[in-house]
Amino acid sequence: MNCKIIGDKCPDMPWEERPANCDRPLWRYSKNPIITKNAVPKCNSIFNSAVIPFGDGFAGVFRCDNDRRQMRIHAGFSKDALNWEIEPEPLTFASSPAGLNFEYAYDPRVCKIDDDYIITWCNGYESYPTIGIAKTRDFKKFDQLENAFLPFNRNGVMFPRKINGMYAMLSRPSDNGHTPFGDIFISYSPDLKFWGGHRLVMKTDMPWESTKIGAGPIPIETSEGWLLIYHGVLTSCSGYVYHFGAALLDLDDPSKVIARGQRYLLAPETPYERYGDVPNVCFPCATLCDSETGRLAVYYGCADTVTGVAFGYVDDIISYIKNN
Amino acid sequence: MNCKIIGDKCPDMPWEERPANCDRPLWRYSKNPIITKNAVPKCNSIFNSAVIPFGDGFAGVFRCDNDRRQMRIHAGFSKDALNWEIEPEPLTFASSPAGLNFEYAYDPRVCKIDDDYIITWCNGYESYPTIGIAKTRDFKKFDQLENAFLPFNRNGVMFPRKINGMYAMLSRPSDNGHTPFGDIFISYSPDLKFWGGHRLVMKTDMPWESTKIGAGPIPIETSEGWLLIYHGVLTSCSGYVYHFGAALLDLDDPSKVIARGQRYLLAPETPYERYGDVPNVCFPCATLCDSETGRLAVYYGCADTVTGVAFGYVDDIISYIKNN
Amino acid sequence: MNCKIIGDKCPDMPWEERPANCDRPLWRYSKNPIITKNAVPKCNSIFNSAVIPFGDGFAGVFRCDNDRRQMRIHAGFSKDALNWEIEPEPLTFASSPAGLNFEYAYDPRVCKIDDDYIITWCNGYESYPTIGIAKTRDFKKFDQLENAFLPFNRNGVMFPRKINGMYAMLSRPSDNGHTPFGDIFISYSPDLKFWGGHRLVMKTDMPWESTKIGAGPIPIETSEGWLLIYHGVLTSCSGYVYHFGAALLDLDDPSKVIARGQRYLLAPETPYERYGDVPNVCFPCATLCDSETGRLAVYYGCADTVTGVAFGYVDDIISYIKNN
Amino acid sequence: MNCKIIGDKCPDMPWEERPANCDRPLWRYSKNPIITKNAVPKCNSIFNSAVIPFGDGFAGVFRCDNDRRQMRIHAGFSKDALNWEIEPEPLTFASSPAGLNFEYAYDPRVCKIDDDYIITWCNGYESYPTIGIAKTRDFKKFDQLENAFLPFNRNGVMFPRKINGMYAMLSRPSDNGHTPFGDIFISYSPDLKFWGGHRLVMKTDMPWESTKIGAGPIPIETSEGWLLIYHGVLTSCSGYVYHFGAALLDLDDPSKVIARGQRYLLAPETPYERYGDVPNVCFPCATLCDSETGRLAVYYGCADTVTGVAFGYVDDIISYIKNN
Amino acid sequence: MNCKIIGDKCPDMPWEERPANCDRPLWRYSKNPIITKNAVPKCNSIFNSAVIPFGDGFAGVFRCDNDRRQMRIHAGFSKDALNWEIEPEPLTFASSPAGLNFEYAYDPRVCKIDDDYIITWCNGYESYPTIGIAKTRDFKKFDQLENAFLPFNRNGVMFPRKINGMYAMLSRPSDNGHTPFGDIFISYSPDLKFWGGHRLVMKTDMPWESTKIGAGPIPIETSEGWLLIYHGVLTSCSGYVYHFGAALLDLDDPSKVIARGQRYLLAPETPYERYGDVPNVCFPCATLCDSETGRLAVYYGCADTVTGVAFGYVDDIISYIKNN
Amino acid sequence: MNCKIIGDKCPDMPWEERPANCDRPLWRYSKNPIITKNAVPKCNSIFNSAVIPFGDGFAGVFRCDNDRRQMRIHAGFSKDALNWEIEPEPLTFASSPAGLNFEYAYDPRVCKIDDDYIITWCNGYESYPTIGIAKTRDFKKFDQLENAFLPFNRNGVMFPRKINGMYAMLSRPSDNGHTPFGDIFISYSPDLKFWGGHRLVMKTDMPWESTKIGAGPIPIETSEGWLLIYHGVLTSCSGYVYHFGAALLDLDDPSKVIARGQRYLLAPETPYERYGDVPNVCFPCATLCDSETGRLAVYYGCADTVTGVAFGYVDDIISYIKNN
Repeated sequence: MNCKIIGDKCPDMPWEERPANCDRPLWRYSKNPIITKNAVPKCNSIFNSAVIPFGDGFAGVFRCDNDRRQMRIHAGFSKDALNWEIEPEPLTFASSPAGLNFEYAYDPRVCKIDDDYIITWCNGYESYPTIGIAKTRDFKKFDQLENAFLPFNRNGVMFPRKINGMYAMLSRPSDNGHTPFGDIFISYSPDLKFWGGHRLVMKTDMPWESTKIGAGPIPIETSEGWLLIYHGVLTSCSGYVYHFGAALLDLDDPSKVIARGQRYLLAPETPYERYGDVPNVCFPCATLCDSETGRLAVYYGCADTVTGVAFGYVDDIISYIKNN
Repeated sequence: MNCKIIGDKCPDMPWEERPANCDRPLWRYSKNPIITKNAVPKCNSIFNSAVIPFGDGFAGVFRCDNDRRQMRIHAGFSKDALNWEIEPEPLTFASSPAGLNFEYAYDPRVCKIDDDYIITWCNGYESYPTIGIAKTRDFKKFDQLENAFLPFNRNGVMFPRKINGMYAMLSRPSDNGHTPFGDIFISYSPDLKFWGGHRLVMKTDMPWESTKIGAGPIPIETSEGWLLIYHGVLTSCSGYVYHFGAALLDLDDPSKVIARGQRYLLAPETPYERYGDVPNVCFPCATLCDSETGRLAVYYGCADTVTGVAFGYVDDIISYIKNN
Repeated sequence: MNCKIIGDKCPDMPWEERPANCDRPLWRYSKNPIITKNAVPKCNSIFNSAVIPFGDGFAGVFRCDNDRRQMRIHAGFSKDALNWEIEPEPLTFASSPAGLNFEYAYDPRVCKIDDDYIITWCNGYESYPTIGIAKTRDFKKFDQLENAFLPFNRNGVMFPRKINGMYAMLSRPSDNGHTPFGDIFISYSPDLKFWGGHRLVMKTDMPWESTKIGAGPIPIETSEGWLLIYHGVLTSCSGYVYHFGAALLDLDDPSKVIARGQRYLLAPETPYERYGDVPNVCFPCATLCDSETGRLAVYYGCADTVTGVAFGYVDDIISYIKNN
Repeated sequence: MNCKIIGDKCPDMPWEERPANCDRPLWRYSKNPIITKNAVPKCNSIFNSAVIPFGDGFAGVFRCDNDRRQMRIHAGFSKDALNWEIEPEPLTFASSPAGLNFEYAYDPRVCKIDDDYIITWCNGYESYPTIGIAKTRDFKKFDQLENAFLPFNRNGVMFPRKINGMYAMLSRPSDNGHTPFGDIFISYSPDLKFWGGHRLVMKTDMPWESTKIGAGPIPIETSEGWLLIYHGVLTSCSGYVYHFGAALLDLDDPSKVIARGQRYLLAPETPYERYGDVPNVCFPCATLCDSETGRLAVYYGCADTVTGVAFGYVDDIISYIKNN
Repeated sequence: MNCKIIGDKCPDMPWEERPANCDRPLWRYSKNPIITKNAVPKCNSIFNSAVIPFGDGFAGVFRCDNDRRQMRIHAGFSKDALNWEIEPEPLTFASSPAGLNFEYAYDPRVCKIDDDYIITWCNGYESYPTIGIAKTRDFKKFDQLENAFLPFNRNGVMFPRKINGMYAMLSRPSDNGHTPFGDIFISYSPDLKFWGGHRLVMKTDMPWESTKIGAGPIPIETSEGWLLIYHGVLTSCSGYVYHFGAALLDLDDPSKVIARGQRYLLAPETPYERYGDVPNVCFPCATLCDSETGRLAVYYGCADTVTGVAFGYVDDIISYIKNN
Repeated sequence: MNCKIIGDKCPDMPWEERPANCDRPLWRYSKNPIITKNAVPKCNSIFNSAVIPFGDGFAGVFRCDNDRRQMRIHAGFSKDALNWEIEPEPLTFASSPAGLNFEYAYDPRVCKIDDDYIITWCNGYESYPTIGIAKTRDFKKFDQLENAFLPFNRNGVMFPRKINGMYAMLSRPSDNGHTPFGDIFISYSPDLKFWGGHRLVMKTDMPWESTKIGAGPIPIETSEGWLLIYHGVLTSCSGYVYHFGAALLDLDDPSKVIARGQRYLLAPETPYERYGDVPNVCFPCATLCDSETGRLAVYYGCADTVTGVAFGYVDDIISYIKNN
């Protein structure tokens, strides 16, 4: 293994070896989807969700659209990170800044910094989308912080440690609608409350990501740089196709792109990715990885309907980025 | 049974009991789809169609798009309301008002008032959509009446009896295209020719119906009010999703909404609803119900391609509306 | 004079002879605009307004957008039909059908049938545009009737007498926005409440009216047919241009077009038509005419800002229609 | 056989007899899809591709989108026209006119005229789509000629012989995007370099082709006229549906349409046509046919993802066109 | 005078008394426009510009689009605030944060806090609009700070003192284009570098401001609250109309709106507001006011072409807001 | 004079010296507009028109939209090139290729090659715009040739001599509508019938031309290269602005741009350019120039309503291009 993951071991993470006929850097779990709407009552779909090691098992925050088609996020727990107990009720905040009322929440990410688990998500503020932030230590009591930015923003993704003494977050400024544009920017904060030092990280580039891109899981620290898995969207003549992409960012200044894969990592192919409430969507939101073996499990939303997992080696993916 | 259906018995209507693992107010017939394009020669698809008890069996009017993709409606007959003989030729009118020429017809409904079966549909007039009306007594000879409204209108649905001495019709004013807006209005007529007293019944509301709503089957008279099953459309980031919804309207003034379900009744889930000429469509157009048992069968178009049936109890649905 | 106006004399109507160098069927009043926002306090603009002989002078209903830019209609009176006293407050209704609340009102027309003055206008209903109707005998007390149609409609224009025992109204079905389409239809009513027998009168045709057309003043009855002056809109590469057009309709069946002018009658040319809140608009809303001399005065909105008058002879205009 | 194919025998072309229950003029190969992305490494999809008899077997040019989602064309060879060896690298040009650089290439067609195989495709020029042309004799060395037209154009399809001494090409002028319009035109050239004499052949017509039409395979010369198979697109309320259509063109003046089928030949129905990167697409690009038996095999792209074959008799199709 | 301006005297500010026939809260300078493109060589237009007392006269920052139609800002000086000497070259920065390159600059505002003059403007960053910030003490040497926000933002307007120890800025989040939406938000910063505590101040409301609103001049501190003059845009059927509006914000928490005028303060009326590069624009960007007399001069862009001034009394305007 | 015009003397061309206060490369004729709609009966506007020396005076082809708003071209004659006699009837063709019927014609150019005057214009073909061509020797008898290109194209402008033995034409491929895009291409022909060798000349570049560009007058041959005056369009937040631009093209290969002015030559400023049927349009279509003095007169359409002239020196303009 040439490239070393800088982080914890995770010996109990899920794993399946690469199938014999597969020459791609990622392969799907054979029992996908791992989570369907049946995990929560009165639920329409569970997808675009985030997991993380917690205690002697795993915890997560899940996007569960209910059968009013309202967008809500729920906490959940698992021993093996494959079979999940998801709370039947959406998570609520023990405290919130004055003036921030709950409207809707979707596409959560979870990041551990020191002893805190920091949740970020697309948060409705005065009916406009921006980046919400909350802290928890036990996935039961959540305290909401100030929204990171003015509207309109989506896909806010924290780095898992301070960089040059500052919290750092990727995000995708956008507008008031699902309009087809968006690039990835980085912003810094001394205190998770005031944000500045905004810089562009990446614009859309190759055809598979030509419409818009957005950060996916929390970036993975490696000896080569931050490994960023992201989604890239192509507009076909009749709808969108969401792919996984990957890039390597400078450890000290993540606005510098060291390498960026010209090829997608994964594209919709199976029935559960090809059709559902939004056809042709693979949307990565979280990873588990083990610094000892270099194994990686990517959790991703499928067709805005169910949740799947794909496996790979961090090492392979970084080679793939550099060589393609 | 708390809520009484005001209407005829229908002991021969199709029925299947609720599957063991189902906690929803409606469940699909296990042999869906019941009608495919094979029922009519040179046909592209049969969907969004209406059935009604007739003689000692059932009759119906079916939307059969042909392989020119022209939209036509055909009469049909059945003994069991599951296996249908559909006329190979579109229905034609024995008489029509001067100036109304046939252009296209889609999404029919059938309503019995006194001895007449009244057909309403989306009718092309000068190439614009409005609500066509016809009468029949035998489903063989149809006499066309005046169009109910000026263009642009769709989803005209009659009430099954006069209200305060007037014919009453729900409809959805819209524009010259499949543009994403539309609310439900009610209008009255002394004679099925002149229409007025137009009132709003419901606007779009919950997320699953946030784009547009339109009346579905003929409203069902109950001791609690008129049970209206309707379709509600959500615009995802890459297309529409059509759900069933339900509401309860005042018996004497149906523009008053007594209760309205915040949750959908049914959403696209099976392959025959998920893909077809228009993916993710469940479009209810007719019901059969039995006043003795409270059983309900909803006939609905699936993915603008085939026709399915779902079952439930009127009583359950009204509870579901009130409690959700 | 070959063509006879069927109607009253109006010897006191405003008049200016045709300028020497003018070869067009209509010519502008040399003191245009005759009405500006100064006629009403806290007013933004007065345009698209209707006048009619009344008592020993004239009365009218005026579109006065206020400085909230709300659209309101005001009554007004004049001795000479050029200098107007406009009520400082919008008109209100002494009675209204239950369920119809005032939202907004614009582009009024006034029609006399027997002893009643009937006002029609574009009326906000549930925030959607449709045709409002009211009656008055003194331009002080107005009683609102039912809206004529379902939304979405604009430019409702009554005929000045019953036709075959029915009230008749032209209108332009449209959608929920200023979108660029619209044709003229006719509808009938036995009682001003229930409307039916809808027929197409004219679609858009020549380039100057290729985007949309809408009826203008109350049609003028002549020995040759109904003279209809209407507006026709062309979409340039950077905005709209509103022209006057004219057509002749059959006296007994006005859905039959006897003749229609291929050339516009009047197009924006003067500064007060060229610029204002909406540049390049000439929008005819009312006429005065004198059956003895054949003189015609057309009242029209200029650039959605002020009100002007143009003069001509009915005879000339009908010749112009027939010859062009 | 009433209608005679004017052309070579092709006894080794693939064939399956019509299934018993099929009454359509075309039927699908039972082992479809015949080509998937697995035929080429790092490939996303292989579709909209062209084949032709070559030597003692077959050759072809294939649209292979790679996993950058770049659009490229590759040469390929087969003994049986079902199992294909496709070159792993895109084809390149031994020579090109100065100023023409490779940008992208898609939807190729292959035509044999005298001893040359002429390839046409949608060619990126200054990032705009137009019709590229190349010649080969061995499918190894390709020489690029001038683009046939100015941008914006797609679906350039040669006739397989000169007509009145001129090369002839069908094409679909369009714009810089996948916008929903397009008709079929014909153009002539004395030398494959300069083009003129442009004439309309067909506009969109029936509902199944109401959005846009484009020529498909090289027209087939028959005793009745040129048989043109083309694609016709309908815009549903939530996306496109691509069908096969067919028409018969005059042998001497192909801008004259002798007959045109009002019904589609084939519409998306199987899972591999219903879903993929673009749902509901059947896109015909090439045929093999045998003048002795009248057999026809149509090669077509399925859902912009894989390649399929359908079979029929030329005779039947021409009857179908004339009778429908 | 009921309402007291909290701020400096400005006895030399320009002034003209209210014309006799004017009953509006603001009136135009009789010699408008005061600045045209002739003030700068190779200039297309000078508008949407900011002025402030400086030394014994006045200084300003001016939007000067050049004859490449590039958007640039220039410093300028004046003795009387009516006749301006504008630097022929755009202003440049003595220092800038790494990574911020000049792209374009428009619609500047100037604010004095302690001894610094702080310039904010719409700043191009990676070709996207956001809020740029710079400091100067002499209007000759300008030091650029970090951009305040991620793209996409416009109309960033500072408060003229810290509030609760924090810098405060109004802005209008928007998207990558001149698309018709936008509300006013407030954000805070401890250091002009990191920003947070984002709250909504006002959404669009009355018809004259129904499309979008944006803060105009630096808010004026009064005994009643912050007087905010802003622009409100209405979309007519053929373009935009930009008006002045005004509101009163709470001194300690400016996200609280104490009063807001339902009527516009000023609307396009004169030729230099009615036509130019963008017709029908009055765009306020700066004020001068004198705490002794309560006099106010509003500097505003006219038709995106020239610069004008309007006069009024702060007292009157606040009454106007409260009473309308 | 550094730069020599290669061409004829034209001592009788109109001329006015540069006004004292003007530092621009072009200045307007003090008596503009020179042609209004009054020159032709039943005319709406005369603009975007072409003139050329002819006999002992001048001839021209004029865009005269009539009062049906149909777009037509008329021949005209003048002694001084300022006062024009325009034929009251549109020009017609003595002969036309079979299949080409007259639909509409606009924006003509006139070019002399050898003894022929070649007219090009935007020609309606099957209701789509493309480039029409005709020849005349006397401006009385015109023979129509084949359209140069497939739809969709506009602004076809010939070079005034063969280049490398070929006719050459600039044009702007576009789409079926006034949509905002367009670059300039060049094409060649051996015979004015067949066209090929298509190459890009220039794309949109500076802000004033960022939406679309199109060739204007016939290029002027100079010792430095071809001087091309063209129009460049900027999209403001509320409409278009059309400017003049200029570039210098290589004499032997005009697809090579030697120099291109970053600044516009002329922008709308006067009332007759600011308002009219399309506000803010300066559209150059023809020049007269005198090789002895280097004087240039540019004929241009103003606001799509009238025709104006601007003067300058070829030498100055080329310096301006090179220096800006």
